[in-house]
Amino acid sequence: MRDPQTAARLMSREELTGQAASLLERLRAKSPRVHCITNSVAQNFTANALLALGAVPSMTLSGEEIGAFVARSDALLVNLGTLDRERREATSIAVDAASQNGLPWVLDPVFVDRAPQRAVYARDLIFLEPKAIRLNAAEFSALADAAPAREAVEAYARARRIVVGLSGAADLIADGERSVSIANGHPLMARVTAMGCAASAIVGACLAVEADALVATASALLIVGIAGEIAAEKSQGPGSFAAAILDALYTIDGKAIAAQARTDMHKVT
Amino acid sequence: MRDPQTAARLMSREELTGQAASLLERLRAKSPRVHCITNSVAQNFTANALLALGAVPSMTLSGEEIGAFVARSDALLVNLGTLDRERREATSIAVDAASQNGLPWVLDPVFVDRAPQRAVYARDLIFLEPKAIRLNAAEFSALADAAPAREAVEAYARARRIVVGLSGAADLIADGERSVSIANGHPLMARVTAMGCAASAIVGACLAVEADALVATASALLIVGIAGEIAAEKSQGPGSFAAAILDALYTIDGKAIAAQARTDMHKVT
Amino acid sequence: MRDPQTAARLMSREELTGQAASLLERLRAKSPRVHCITNSVAQNFTANALLALGAVPSMTLSGEEIGAFVARSDALLVNLGTLDRERREATSIAVDAASQNGLPWVLDPVFVDRAPQRAVYARDLIFLEPKAIRLNAAEFSALADAAPAREAVEAYARARRIVVGLSGAADLIADGERSVSIANGHPLMARVTAMGCAASAIVGACLAVEADALVATASALLIVGIAGEIAAEKSQGPGSFAAAILDALYTIDGKAIAAQARTDMHKVT
Repeated sequence: MRDPQTAARLMSREELTGQAASLLERLRAKSPRVHCITNSVAQNFTANALLALGAVPSMTLSGEEIGAFVARSDALLVNLGTLDRERREATSIAVDAASQNGLPWVLDPVFVDRAPQRAVYARDLIFLEPKAIRLNAAEFSALADAAPAREAVEAYARARRIVVGLSGAADLIADGERSVSIANGHPLMARVTAMGCAASAIVGACLAVEADALVATASALLIVGIAGEIAAEKSQGPGSFAAAILDALYTIDGKAIAAQARTDMHKVT
Repeated sequence: MRDPQTAARLMSREELTGQAASLLERLRAKSPRVHCITNSVAQNFTANALLALGAVPSMTLSGEEIGAFVARSDALLVNLGTLDRERREATSIAVDAASQNGLPWVLDPVFVDRAPQRAVYARDLIFLEPKAIRLNAAEFSALADAAPAREAVEAYARARRIVVGLSGAADLIADGERSVSIANGHPLMARVTAMGCAASAIVGACLAVEADALVATASALLIVGIAGEIAAEKSQGPGSFAAAILDALYTIDGKAIAAQARTDMHKVT
Repeated sequence: MRDPQTAARLMSREELTGQAASLLERLRAKSPRVHCITNSVAQNFTANALLALGAVPSMTLSGEEIGAFVARSDALLVNLGTLDRERREATSIAVDAASQNGLPWVLDPVFVDRAPQRAVYARDLIFLEPKAIRLNAAEFSALADAAPAREAVEAYARARRIVVGLSGAADLIADGERSVSIANGHPLMARVTAMGCAASAIVGACLAVEADALVATASALLIVGIAGEIAAEKSQGPGSFAAAILDALYTIDGKAIAAQARTDMHKVT
């Protein structure tokens, strides 16, 4: 039996799908501006994913103007992508601007498991209070120094007061009090570069229209996962899949979410 | 009645479509080299749009070699994309090289409405005599400090001795003496990032084979708009549309231009 | 009659296709990590080509972390893309890391025919002993100061102890002792940006699982050429082709290689 001190409440399928459908409508009505600090590999696909869903991306990394761009945005994405001094300065300005303007921001600590300095930097950024962090199991392990089991993820979220969106065969989204497991998605998603980066940007777009960061993050990953399944049915491989998932992000609606959502906690490792 | 001092002559549908068809043939025969200073979000799609149409892109931004690349090119695109000192230095070298070699260049003042320093910089660049400037209504307003009405666009073009290509539900192209309105295009074009940037690069390719900058700019926007309509018929959303418009730029010919062009001045606001 | 001093042995069709099929199986079993120094135009398509085939790309260019990334990789691609001091420093660190860790690396001297300083730099890099160099005829001529005839390519490979992969209507791959000609491919490959860059990255992935650099390079170009033919059958132009060749890299197998390979020396100029 799980320790009631650490066990988080599981959100139901109906609770999640209803909230996600409502969020999607608000997102398309508002067309939130999402400023994205991301690597050049991911920029194009990330921008297209935001546009397909109904958000408006901007991407400049110049320290001289990023503050003005963030101040006119509704949310911010910080993807570690490439680390250098110039990029870190731009990130610092952007996070300051987000804080001053009360904008939510999301951190994607991509590849923190590959270079030690990335993990150090990501830990510093988490003190600046992103609403959410989206990452995979290897990245979570490098960042949290713990195996990516449900209890560890929930404990990490509770201690940092952050929503963790952990991508995997099943996604786990946790804020320490509540958890959601999403079993949607398709293996071809791992064969298209920047799929995770784009998912993080969509978390940003959802945070722009939903104050409950757990609902925003879970809705984003649910929408992306279902879009992936819709796309896979129309694809012959990763090239046609990359186009088809943008088509699916453009057409997905509450009906598809209600029909296809799989919130299946026992699949989480 | 319009003031004859400010009213510009309207080009007819037949005049425009005939010129555009001729230009397209010359473009494919010559395969002009277009050097593009553009942001990393737009680089790949811009390069593919030029290649699909029949031009040859190059994209280096290094100040150490951009002069040599521009000197071996037939036209130059300056897209403000990301603004920083290094980028401004490269732009300065590139514009100098274009001037010294008599190459036409086109300015895309993307997002000048989002950061004040971009508008200042764009105004400085216009003194360096680009042949054409392509932008949307919000960008025109920020740059010209005027509402994007036909008279204001024509007055701006006349005063700066520049061709203005204003994109919108209907495009307006003006050099102060003549104007063209193009009502082609499709809403999905706004759902693919870098579509406007690619259109500006195609303006550059057209300037490389056509000395009349109004004809070059109008032909470019006509070709892109019709390609968008052809693509929309084969698309299920913005992902398949992005691929289909490249296919359409590859296959479009004078016959499609003559059949589909809509030059419909009353649609211009 | 050819001079026996300079004539290289021609690999047979059966020898090449058998080796390529075996290599492809090993590549998919190992999923080698390929760190890519490449330009921002090519990054996304290159990453997607590697993922489609079964390899794992990383792309950071930051001098502060590229050493750590290369040390955790199985091969390195150096594409000249954009030349500036920062990029040259990153390349220097990356090549050092590859040497220290015994990793193979491949050089793509893109556009050395367009700017003199690129050719100088490329010649310097060749002293650092890449296993292979992939380039087109114009680039070979600029680099080797010789016409791209078979004898010149073979002599260059022998003198530099490097495998040369020369792309063209027919590809010529030579290490000075052996040569292969591959007549596969499709004209649409020249209408998609970064196709050559992606081919070079695939050479890197093949070098990661095959110690014989001639076999690795020839297999890579054979796989890419056949994938291009498969893709062309399903394409309406360069946009759908770009997606279809990623699909084909994902599905291609030894059977397709055996059925479609064309090793046709007399087509080489």
